[in-house]
Amino acid sequence: MTGHLATLPGTTTALARLFGDAATISAALGFEAALARAQAAVGLIAPEAADRIAEACATLAIDPEQLAEQAALAGTLAIPLVARLREALDPETAALVHRGATSQDLADTVLMLRAARAAPLVYADLDRCAEALARLAARHAATPAMGRTLLQDAVPITFGLRAAQWLAGIRSAAERLERECETGLILQFGGAAGTRAGLDGKGAMVAAHLARALGLRNPPAPWHARRDNVAAIASALAIAIGTLGKVARDVSLLAQDAVGEAHEPRMPGRGGSSAMPHKRNPTGCQVALAAALRAPGLVAGILAGLPQEFERGLGGWQAEAPMLVELFLLAGGSAAAMAQVLEGLEVDMAALARNIETKLIDGDTGEAEALVAAILAEWERR
Amino acid sequence: MTGHLATLPGTTTALARLFGDAATISAALGFEAALARAQAAVGLIAPEAADRIAEACATLAIDPEQLAEQAALAGTLAIPLVARLREALDPETAALVHRGATSQDLADTVLMLRAARAAPLVYADLDRCAEALARLAARHAATPAMGRTLLQDAVPITFGLRAAQWLAGIRSAAERLERECETGLILQFGGAAGTRAGLDGKGAMVAAHLARALGLRNPPAPWHARRDNVAAIASALAIAIGTLGKVARDVSLLAQDAVGEAHEPRMPGRGGSSAMPHKRNPTGCQVALAAALRAPGLVAGILAGLPQEFERGLGGWQAEAPMLVELFLLAGGSAAAMAQVLEGLEVDMAALARNIETKLIDGDTGEAEALVAAILAEWERR
Amino acid sequence: MTGHLATLPGTTTALARLFGDAATISAALGFEAALARAQAAVGLIAPEAADRIAEACATLAIDPEQLAEQAALAGTLAIPLVARLREALDPETAALVHRGATSQDLADTVLMLRAARAAPLVYADLDRCAEALARLAARHAATPAMGRTLLQDAVPITFGLRAAQWLAGIRSAAERLERECETGLILQFGGAAGTRAGLDGKGAMVAAHLARALGLRNPPAPWHARRDNVAAIASALAIAIGTLGKVARDVSLLAQDAVGEAHEPRMPGRGGSSAMPHKRNPTGCQVALAAALRAPGLVAGILAGLPQEFERGLGGWQAEAPMLVELFLLAGGSAAAMAQVLEGLEVDMAALARNIETKLIDGDTGEAEALVAAILAEWERR
Amino acid sequence: MTGHLATLPGTTTALARLFGDAATISAALGFEAALARAQAAVGLIAPEAADRIAEACATLAIDPEQLAEQAALAGTLAIPLVARLREALDPETAALVHRGATSQDLADTVLMLRAARAAPLVYADLDRCAEALARLAARHAATPAMGRTLLQDAVPITFGLRAAQWLAGIRSAAERLERECETGLILQFGGAAGTRAGLDGKGAMVAAHLARALGLRNPPAPWHARRDNVAAIASALAIAIGTLGKVARDVSLLAQDAVGEAHEPRMPGRGGSSAMPHKRNPTGCQVALAAALRAPGLVAGILAGLPQEFERGLGGWQAEAPMLVELFLLAGGSAAAMAQVLEGLEVDMAALARNIETKLIDGDTGEAEALVAAILAEWERR
Repeated sequence: MTGHLATLPGTTTALARLFGDAATISAALGFEAALARAQAAVGLIAPEAADRIAEACATLAIDPEQLAEQAALAGTLAIPLVARLREALDPETAALVHRGATSQDLADTVLMLRAARAAPLVYADLDRCAEALARLAARHAATPAMGRTLLQDAVPITFGLRAAQWLAGIRSAAERLERECETGLILQFGGAAGTRAGLDGKGAMVAAHLARALGLRNPPAPWHARRDNVAAIASALAIAIGTLGKVARDVSLLAQDAVGEAHEPRMPGRGGSSAMPHKRNPTGCQVALAAALRAPGLVAGILAGLPQEFERGLGGWQAEAPMLVELFLLAGGSAAAMAQVLEGLEVDMAALARNIETKLIDGDTGEAEALVAAILAEWERR
Repeated sequence: MTGHLATLPGTTTALARLFGDAATISAALGFEAALARAQAAVGLIAPEAADRIAEACATLAIDPEQLAEQAALAGTLAIPLVARLREALDPETAALVHRGATSQDLADTVLMLRAARAAPLVYADLDRCAEALARLAARHAATPAMGRTLLQDAVPITFGLRAAQWLAGIRSAAERLERECETGLILQFGGAAGTRAGLDGKGAMVAAHLARALGLRNPPAPWHARRDNVAAIASALAIAIGTLGKVARDVSLLAQDAVGEAHEPRMPGRGGSSAMPHKRNPTGCQVALAAALRAPGLVAGILAGLPQEFERGLGGWQAEAPMLVELFLLAGGSAAAMAQVLEGLEVDMAALARNIETKLIDGDTGEAEALVAAILAEWERR
Repeated sequence: MTGHLATLPGTTTALARLFGDAATISAALGFEAALARAQAAVGLIAPEAADRIAEACATLAIDPEQLAEQAALAGTLAIPLVARLREALDPETAALVHRGATSQDLADTVLMLRAARAAPLVYADLDRCAEALARLAARHAATPAMGRTLLQDAVPITFGLRAAQWLAGIRSAAERLERECETGLILQFGGAAGTRAGLDGKGAMVAAHLARALGLRNPPAPWHARRDNVAAIASALAIAIGTLGKVARDVSLLAQDAVGEAHEPRMPGRGGSSAMPHKRNPTGCQVALAAALRAPGLVAGILAGLPQEFERGLGGWQAEAPMLVELFLLAGGSAAAMAQVLEGLEVDMAALARNIETKLIDGDTGEAEALVAAILAEWERR
Repeated sequence: MTGHLATLPGTTTALARLFGDAATISAALGFEAALARAQAAVGLIAPEAADRIAEACATLAIDPEQLAEQAALAGTLAIPLVARLREALDPETAALVHRGATSQDLADTVLMLRAARAAPLVYADLDRCAEALARLAARHAATPAMGRTLLQDAVPITFGLRAAQWLAGIRSAAERLERECETGLILQFGGAAGTRAGLDGKGAMVAAHLARALGLRNPPAPWHARRDNVAAIASALAIAIGTLGKVARDVSLLAQDAVGEAHEPRMPGRGGSSAMPHKRNPTGCQVALAAALRAPGLVAGILAGLPQEFERGLGGWQAEAPMLVELFLLAGGSAAAMAQVLEGLEVDMAALARNIETKLIDGDTGEAEALVAAILAEWERR
């Protein structure tokens, strides 16, 4: 996908920037700088050489479009990037750049670095959703509402129970996402074939220094062709997106004219219609529902790529990065959209009551309230 | 998919049976019996009535094809099953069957019960793979082998490092699968709209008794339209399948005539060719690779179904069960096939040596051995 | 998936039978008999030998479960099936069985034969849907109905326009499916590596005879590792399923209590609730919506398998067959369910009128009627 | 996905530009201009007003990032774009902008316009592949090569047969793509709820003029919630991508050091390794294989979105556009990469001969040559 008009409708400006060209180049140069310093720290290269490399990384100006064209030709970002960096250095220092690393070390670590910055943004908006839902669940714990099953009116529940169930889903999805990111956003550093050769036996020490400098966890071994961490993060993002999509599905159904039990908040510039000024479209839900349609196939693509060849595969990991990035963009976009929806959700008490009365069903809500209490208790123990 | 010829090539006989008609009916009747006993335990129905229901559940003979046709018509298994059960009882007892439960309580719990029996079979075969790989990794920790990247010869690694990397992948996938099953295989019990209404305020107690009797974890609330547990188990199964597929990809590439570094073990009746008797096909890898192609789309289907409507959705959870079952079948089939492959893997030391010598590359393996040791140490700490 | 309870909720009994064990074995034996006769016809084997083979194929009794276990072990159905057939013949004739064929010739042709029988069943039910919709469109061409966009009331349309749009979708999907089946359901016959070797240069003639006897189109060359026909049929099935799902989505939304503009017909045994006898669940729509969730991932799996290795791949085509079969089952099940829904659809004129009046919007329907006429004219030109 | 570094590795610069912000804005303004002129042509607005609108469309300068942010907020591009356009006009003329159109008319038509420009670029590179393959098939029709099945050496074929099979696949995929684009890239024009209301009964005439001006086919009716054309184009793109992926899979396996039968051509700046200067990576194949992993899930996403609600859905069509664009980008990128690979493919005759001799299998190639001739004859009849 290319350009703002293709990207921004599904995500936030902050996330789009985090995965944009400038951030990618910055992360790549940060990797090379940290690698040089790590090698200096274990005595593989002189501290002065590391300083010169780090200085070049800090000051190099790169045209993203040109770099992207060269990377597309080369088949990897590392080759033109390292070439640009070496051109900026004296020959002796230049030879020390990227030492012991392979293209995929750079590519994977750059992916992880950007993901590690994106994840907290996603958590924050999931948390906003959860907080808003906890408030709704508490406030409406005993507010009778028509329960609906198989899209038919069933028996009464309370509006708070519906909100509590939404909360339980988002909380569970957020916890899984944090757990998978916690263990799965890790340094990649293995060299040409994943043996950390060519570093005088100091590969493990270099990895440890590098991980610390970059703020990534240091796994016991490289993982060039073992990608379950990426697949698990992707799945967790898609589950979060699907869980937000469930809330969006319900809110949009509640906002139908014939139901009218809840509505997205009014916001200037949002939810209008180019043909029907009287309409109030559930635009936040639209963002979340669109994300819920796009995410599953991205996970399928990442899963399909798991059987990668030998020490570093052909096509598999190269396909994975744009799909994982897209999942972060969609998860963040969906969470932000639904946070706005839920923080300002307009619950129409009259409509809730009216839709029950027409059914003349007894509205004892004791059991529903007990379930709300149980879910909120879990939430407060977090 | 219908019949043995469609099912067995992808799975094991034991798993096919666990998800077959007889096991499904047995689990369903087991749910109804346990539900009656749970209600007796909390004083909602007389112990004698529960005995009569349990007795009927234990003795009822049901024709699966007829039941399936009725269930397809009704849109749910519960309606014809409960009707059959009630017919076998006196009217007064009959009225107590399925009390407080909804169709989806039965359907979901039956799914969970069968999955809870299938999961240990999958774990066991994943463990066989891991044990075999730990042995291979230890034995060949220092055996030089050509490392290959982007499907090209790169620099030497050791065969043990390749095996250790396979092991690390399977171990990580197995741990994730166990964790998600541990938390996600849970009782479903919520009644018509998930409020546990109609049980004199004793719904939570009934659920607790029911869960204990069925050997399932009892969640704080029903989860009719909140399916992240199912999606997470599905993802974990697919990640395990993809990880096994990675091993199969590599073994099948190693078994190419021109490479010849490793071969599946010879087994009577396996791997022949109907046209070329001299061939020795990598049939175990074939099972795993086919599973790795089928699994991602099943996960995508489950993820796409997450935005289910209101208290219990229309189409979403009904679509989910056959996909989750298929994933268990494929995971178990793949793990069993690869366990056989890895337990008997024939490593050709001469071919390994020959494929390195032709490149005249220095074969220091110290770093690779250190990584093998690091991965095996992790494995032994499990 | 295993058993009736897993299969029948998503399909029809007739389709389940067409893809069941007995039909599979029958198709496989039919292939071997026709192959022998084709070779006799071109003088490669004696007519008497062909007779004996055909006789054995006609009379052989095979236990499907045992055959399936052997096929799973062998990695292909052909090996145990041909072995069983040879056992039933004198050694000389036995040697002529399966001559010039490879396992995949059998497997692919068996798949095509069953698909060629299933396709007309799917067409027939799609046609029932279209006929019912053409009637609804004509009858309600001028019946005002609230148009809804982004799940909000918009401006009036006519109920006939909605039905005409459903019709246009189903018609287009049916035409694409017929076109892809017409060109894509073809004989597979290429021998070990797709060269038709070992047939004294008469391979093309054998293929022509074989195709004619089996009633399949004879392509210019075998297509063992070139599977775009399978992928295109799969996509066309999924598009039909999605198009039926769109109708089901709308009908189920119209059937909501708060909208009430249309309902599925009442049928004994269908649409009840195990917990709420007053409910009338949209069970036909449920079948179609569940199919629409399951189909996309099956297509993704088949597409992901396209890059098959060399002359005949490892894992790719083996994974494809169960997914294509599932798509036929789901398409047929969905079309049959929606045919029943649409043939008996109860349109509530009062509700339609009421839901417009509340909006006080002018209800001129001239343009909508013109569009209905345009779509119906297209339909009648078919 | 955001930025050049995320987009260009998978596609061509020309395609990235076609779907970039500038092209999108230009297509959108082109739609509004053509709509105004079409209304003038049928007498709905004054020609001078249409001129003023077209003039504003031709001269308006829009900041893509700002517009994208407003579109994301509004939930649709049309609202801020039309607002900008109106601001640039006198109030009377401004009121005539976008008359009778809805947001989705603009969005869908903009998608179609860009796709209609992208499709010929994809065709052209598929054609380059096919031409190169026809030459390879003819040149090597009788060149013996080891046939390989299930990744094992089988019996000899000819290299020309392999190339002819690749050709047959690409030709079939290209024909399907052209057919689906021919019928499916169509004008969208239906107004608020798809009735073409508000145009004094001249909606059909406006549509006809608009389609002609934009160079798109004019369908009998709008198709806001009937998206089988989009799904079919998406499937055809993915089938083309998978077919190219099959060629790439084979070329990359042939290029393995131990096989060495064919190699990608050498190109400056392509296929190097950042760690191993001696390597020659199959980078063109990498592009095609990565695309083949990403495409299936995009199709699944579009298929999953087919069941859209009522006259214009919520989330479904909004999700579809970025996925269809991605498929065009990947198809074009894959075709361009493989065209380069195939036009310069280096076939190693010595390796082909060596890999057969080691098996001592008789190499009569008559049947293979006949199949090559049959496939080439089909190709020349195109």
